[in-house]
Amino acid sequence: MNPTAAMLVIGDEILSGRTRDANMYHLAGRLTEMGINLKEVRVVADEPSAIIHAVNELRSKFDHVFTSGGIGPTHDDITAENVAAALGVPIAPRQDAIDILATNYANGYADLNTARMRMTRIPDDAKLIDNSISKAPGFTIANIHVMAGVPKIFKVMLDSLLPKLKGGDPVISKNVKLSIAEGDIAEQLKLIVDTFPTLSIGSYPFSNSEGYGTNVVIRGTQPALVTEATDMVCEIFNVA
Amino acid sequence: MNPTAAMLVIGDEILSGRTRDANMYHLAGRLTEMGINLKEVRVVADEPSAIIHAVNELRSKFDHVFTSGGIGPTHDDITAENVAAALGVPIAPRQDAIDILATNYANGYADLNTARMRMTRIPDDAKLIDNSISKAPGFTIANIHVMAGVPKIFKVMLDSLLPKLKGGDPVISKNVKLSIAEGDIAEQLKLIVDTFPTLSIGSYPFSNSEGYGTNVVIRGTQPALVTEATDMVCEIFNVA
Repeated sequence: MNPTAAMLVIGDEILSGRTRDANMYHLAGRLTEMGINLKEVRVVADEPSAIIHAVNELRSKFDHVFTSGGIGPTHDDITAENVAAALGVPIAPRQDAIDILATNYANGYADLNTARMRMTRIPDDAKLIDNSISKAPGFTIANIHVMAGVPKIFKVMLDSLLPKLKGGDPVISKNVKLSIAEGDIAEQLKLIVDTFPTLSIGSYPFSNSEGYGTNVVIRGTQPALVTEATDMVCEIFNVA
Repeated sequence: MNPTAAMLVIGDEILSGRTRDANMYHLAGRLTEMGINLKEVRVVADEPSAIIHAVNELRSKFDHVFTSGGIGPTHDDITAENVAAALGVPIAPRQDAIDILATNYANGYADLNTARMRMTRIPDDAKLIDNSISKAPGFTIANIHVMAGVPKIFKVMLDSLLPKLKGGDPVISKNVKLSIAEGDIAEQLKLIVDTFPTLSIGSYPFSNSEGYGTNVVIRGTQPALVTEATDMVCEIFNVA
């Protein structure tokens, strides 16, 4: 069984429609590549009870929880302390994080005002996640990986974190594009789905300037089965 | 107090990174315009237990639940029956939905094969949501609004649904763009936040070709307070 994961996006700006989240799509693709199954995503507001409830529910259900957002220097950045609260562990500025963050400023430690010191608060026993852009680190504690919301920083943190995690069997995905309406393939497709219970087979209608049709996506960790199911889709629906 | 809402996005294709969700951003903007506060979004897989758990948790916590995805004709479209299961109500093809769907096909009722008939299953006592594009209706049952995942269909369903819902006080939003790093405004910004406890004030760093800085977003339902807080931000940070 491949490891499972959830994502927790924290931020009023996503829920108000001010900002379009970009991290979910990026994380989903990266995890799929390495055989970690993303099973759930939640977006919650900058509210302690919302963050704590989500962290506790997700960390108990899935092997990994990846968070995005809320670790900057301002009053609305409350992710770190609420992840610590969810776990019941202390959090305070930590010297290794202070030393790293100081390298980001012209005057080093002298530029670490009270606000920036918020970004050096790390729960006890957490491991830091590198941030090659603005230096303020993320952290991993238990099975929770706490990262920034700014997409380019989220990406570099993920680049640093993912090689350290154990992946699963790569998921192979095949797409068959049919010029047939979804409602006209559904019954035969169901037979194929029932023949391959270990595969995930999805059906996605499209319509564009070339017409309409259905993409059938066959996914699984067993290459031979994926090929067999794909061949069956092609044969039944007469795809060359 | 403005009404609250959650969104539930259902679909393996989002979690695998195959498809980038577009409905969340659209819904967030529309709800904000009408004074309904979107408080949480969840994305779950095409699995009965995941859908039922999320529906039940969200419908008990928020005034409205908007779902997206999983109401097409194929085997992986399992939203309707699992919303019904979450509520413990029967679901079956309903004549009004059958009559509407038949108008979408050249041969009318004769084109309603077993697969398409799946799209006419409506829980008892649900109200239909119009779909001007492909006709297959969504539905509202209790405080749950079940809609399609295809973005253009989600949009027209929402256009049909939202005017029927009671909105709240419109949320006014002001943005002040500062050429100052987030860490250098945080302490003074905190004072402004504490002065206006009924407003939501967010701080969002940016960096682009023009340099870096911070957007301060002031949001609330009381226009005079929003203006007052915005003026205070401008004064403290010397914005003309």
